Amino acid sequence: MMFSEKPLPDAVDLRHHLSELAKARSVSPLKGLQKYMDKPGLISLAGGLPSPQYFPFHSLGAEVLVEDQFPLNPSSHPSSLSWFWKLFGSKPAERTTSVSVPKFADKTGDIDLATALQYSMAKGLQPLQDFIKKFVENVYQPAYGNYVTLIHAGNTDGVNKSIMTLCNPGDGVLMSEWTYPSTMATIKPLGVDVVPVGMDGQGMSAIALEQLLAEWDVEAHGGMARPRVMYTVPIGQNPTGATMGAQRKKEIYAVCVKYDVVIIEDDPYYFLQQGEYVPKAERVEEDVVVHKDEEKHFVASLAPSFLKFDYQGRVIRLETFSKTIAPGSRLGFFTCNPMFAERLERQGETSTQAPCGFGQSMVASLLLQWQYPGYIRWLRALRLQYKARRDFFIDCFDEQFSMRRSIAASGAHTGAVVYEGSLKPLRGEKFAASGKTLFSFIPPSSGMFIWMQLHFDDHPELATLGTKELEMKLWTALAEAGVMFGPGAMFSSVNIAEDAGGPGHFRISFSNAEYDELKKSVEIFQTVIRKFFKDL
Amino acid sequence: MMFSEKPLPDAVDLRHHLSELAKARSVSPLKGLQKYMDKPGLISLAGGLPSPQYFPFHSLGAEVLVEDQFPLNPSSHPSSLSWFWKLFGSKPAERTTSVSVPKFADKTGDIDLATALQYSMAKGLQPLQDFIKKFVENVYQPAYGNYVTLIHAGNTDGVNKSIMTLCNPGDGVLMSEWTYPSTMATIKPLGVDVVPVGMDGQGMSAIALEQLLAEWDVEAHGGMARPRVMYTVPIGQNPTGATMGAQRKKEIYAVCVKYDVVIIEDDPYYFLQQGEYVPKAERVEEDVVVHKDEEKHFVASLAPSFLKFDYQGRVIRLETFSKTIAPGSRLGFFTCNPMFAERLERQGETSTQAPCGFGQSMVASLLLQWQYPGYIRWLRALRLQYKARRDFFIDCFDEQFSMRRSIAASGAHTGAVVYEGSLKPLRGEKFAASGKTLFSFIPPSSGMFIWMQLHFDDHPELATLGTKELEMKLWTALAEAGVMFGPGAMFSSVNIAEDAGGPGHFRISFSNAEYDELKKSVEIFQTVIRKFFKDL
Repeated sequence: MMFSEKPLPDAVDLRHHLSELAKARSVSPLKGLQKYMDKPGLISLAGGLPSPQYFPFHSLGAEVLVEDQFPLNPSSHPSSLSWFWKLFGSKPAERTTSVSVPKFADKTGDIDLATALQYSMAKGLQPLQDFIKKFVENVYQPAYGNYVTLIHAGNTDGVNKSIMTLCNPGDGVLMSEWTYPSTMATIKPLGVDVVPVGMDGQGMSAIALEQLLAEWDVEAHGGMARPRVMYTVPIGQNPTGATMGAQRKKEIYAVCVKYDVVIIEDDPYYFLQQGEYVPKAERVEEDVVVHKDEEKHFVASLAPSFLKFDYQGRVIRLETFSKTIAPGSRLGFFTCNPMFAERLERQGETSTQAPCGFGQSMVASLLLQWQYPGYIRWLRALRLQYKARRDFFIDCFDEQFSMRRSIAASGAHTGAVVYEGSLKPLRGEKFAASGKTLFSFIPPSSGMFIWMQLHFDDHPELATLGTKELEMKLWTALAEAGVMFGPGAMFSSVNIAEDAGGPGHFRISFSNAEYDELKKSVEIFQTVIRKFFKDL
Repeated sequence: MMFSEKPLPDAVDLRHHLSELAKARSVSPLKGLQKYMDKPGLISLAGGLPSPQYFPFHSLGAEVLVEDQFPLNPSSHPSSLSWFWKLFGSKPAERTTSVSVPKFADKTGDIDLATALQYSMAKGLQPLQDFIKKFVENVYQPAYGNYVTLIHAGNTDGVNKSIMTLCNPGDGVLMSEWTYPSTMATIKPLGVDVVPVGMDGQGMSAIALEQLLAEWDVEAHGGMARPRVMYTVPIGQNPTGATMGAQRKKEIYAVCVKYDVVIIEDDPYYFLQQGEYVPKAERVEEDVVVHKDEEKHFVASLAPSFLKFDYQGRVIRLETFSKTIAPGSRLGFFTCNPMFAERLERQGETSTQAPCGFGQSMVASLLLQWQYPGYIRWLRALRLQYKARRDFFIDCFDEQFSMRRSIAASGAHTGAVVYEGSLKPLRGEKFAASGKTLFSFIPPSSGMFIWMQLHFDDHPELATLGTKELEMKLWTALAEAGVMFGPGAMFSSVNIAEDAGGPGHFRISFSNAEYDELKKSVEIFQTVIRKFFKDL
């Protein structure tokens, strides 16, 4: 049974983008049976389903936080003082409400365990599907009318399924120079190569992308055809923290239309958009302005998704509940054209099947408890929590170092406001590196990470050790001293071994540690980097 | 980074079984960081982890059934009278106990949501890992000392990961002539072909397997090398319901050693071993005999796993909680050698990651609540529930048809006791097909299915329509009349189109429908098949 080739409605024809693997997948074996399955009174002895009577779960329940657990005015909020409560042993209570899922629902259509814990279509629970569809419509306003949403088991699963659906061995995938290592680890064993694209302060550069595609030389790329898939983390880019605005997205989309490129938009940090960093001394306590339609105002304040410009259906958007609810939910969803969605669903049937029913029913119950306005309320406060964390963390650098602001003129950071750190001179200390820029970063406007550049230029060991080894030497010294950063080399889509010199990098996460730990980590960093350069 | 080639301890060298894809997978990026991660007091800013403070789940809980909810003397049990309670509107209450998982555990090592809902190693929760390891040791007693258990997201996921780890495009996988369609749908798009092996009443034939491998002719198989992977569902085989005993397993294992074949043992029905079917008239109510060590006695009564004979570490056993707890848990585990396990874990990291934390924590909480003896108690009763269902269902055939017993002399059923069904003559009716065998089946000794052979031999339309179409014609007539069976052609690993004539098949599940529905379905079957042959 081969995939039946129907034209894609309301869009350009994208069938040629399917991988051989995706084309070879069966049609659903249930397709022929479907017309009878909804027949009233039908006794089905066709499936290998255990009786729900034998599910040892009578009911499932949870105490869930109320949607306004976190304030819209975060400076007044306990979390920024968590170190204080930790020291003094009391924490403010979580305000909760109950959700519960019985084995059998009283009302048709309600979530129950007899359904959620049974085998099911890879599409998952209907109430969850409905919530997601409405959410995508309200928040992203896709330009392509005929889009479909389909749940998956988290964005790592989503990336894996997307690549297997779009790429054959020998293909290349366009990715930023600095990129998410897990995606590289996913695609390379499939025989698919990473094709690095230049970046600037907004992430992937449309100019670099166009130039790469326009000048593509099959021979020079070892026989690789011009790539037809692009992978991007456009908001809070991993690792650089860059946020790609609407204009850049339009430009990149236009290039992708011109060269027939499908876009995989991996967007876990979408709701962690925090706005520009303002140094503590210049920061003004803003009043919470109440808008007439808070939800719409919030949604409009966010950088748009590629979906908003995708009139051809060439975007596969991957969204996850990992950052907005919990990573362990292993639950997220695709938004894409129905032809891709159908192939992705078939792939789900032969691997993950539907995501875990415990997770589906708990996440769905939470969302139905909160409803759309409640979830939006949660997200509005969540991004402010991350904003407060980012601000606090960068403030710590200001305390420990002399930080200078400048505008980057070249390189991956072109056009962005860069913070350059140098050592504060210690009294009576004569130290050559004082006053020199040892590291720099662009305060991220989204996401979880500081992407730090390490200015090894004048380090005398640079010539002998090279950037990668020097970076690991500093990384190890920091780990020995009690703080662990993400080694920058992991995030490079370019082979670092070929790199002679240049800056090192760390990805530093401010998303999880307690505030006092964030503070302490910068103190340790100051002590270690001082010694690292002093020991020259 | 390539997979480092270390020798496999205590076993033959099986590295050459790894697929190119499996070899190309990165080593864990965390490996280098690991030695620091356990450092006391370390502040890690390396991962992209949200703070558990932002998980909107304060606690998770469930009412779970007690382990002795179902009796060890099932004939006295309500479930066999469920149609009675359904009619009269009252059902016996489920006896439950509570489990709950807080966000933060009071005691180190206890399950908590801060861990279960966070990103984690693909290995999953430690208490679940520990339970599984002990369970495998007690129940299967693997011959290979150095085995490893590793969780996965259900056996469909397990099959997919196993095939991707072992097979390259162009390879073949040995499978029974009749086999599980989902596995075929999983492997074929990967460019891996199914190589059918002959069967008898115990499932795959060791003689047929040996002959196929001994006489393998690359040319005759279109250039395919002799297969080095075998896939089997040895207990309650899907669809035939066959159970492979210890002797057959030893024989097949010896063939696999001789020809260097890795065995994928997909064993979802292991605990649904029901024993031989005894006709109602001959059935004797057995007293529950209390043994000194009930757990050991029960375990010893079951057909062993391939693990028990696998002294070389060439078995990958796939086990799932789908049939013993619930399919929606999407949770199961591999048992295999550590080299395969390491590659499978890396594959997990780049696709599913760890299975859903809601599911892991709920299944683990249930198992820890029951403990090993409690879970064994649950399993002992569960198989009796399925035995009661099977017996009831086959009894229904005895009521509706004239059933004759015989020993099959040839074909897939060789050596087994076969039940042949013919129509009971209706008073005053003159019907040529009366007395002729219209269908037959071997009562399954395990699993969920009756695998019915349809005796189309004398059907005059056989010559014109062929088996497949005649089968679908009868299938459709049944669906129209209100009962749905599984169409047999779906389960064939041999191309049915090449099949001129021969019997048709249905796979009929007795696992899920209510007892009154099971009864009614056989009545409908009797009416429809009478008409089907009468309408000749």
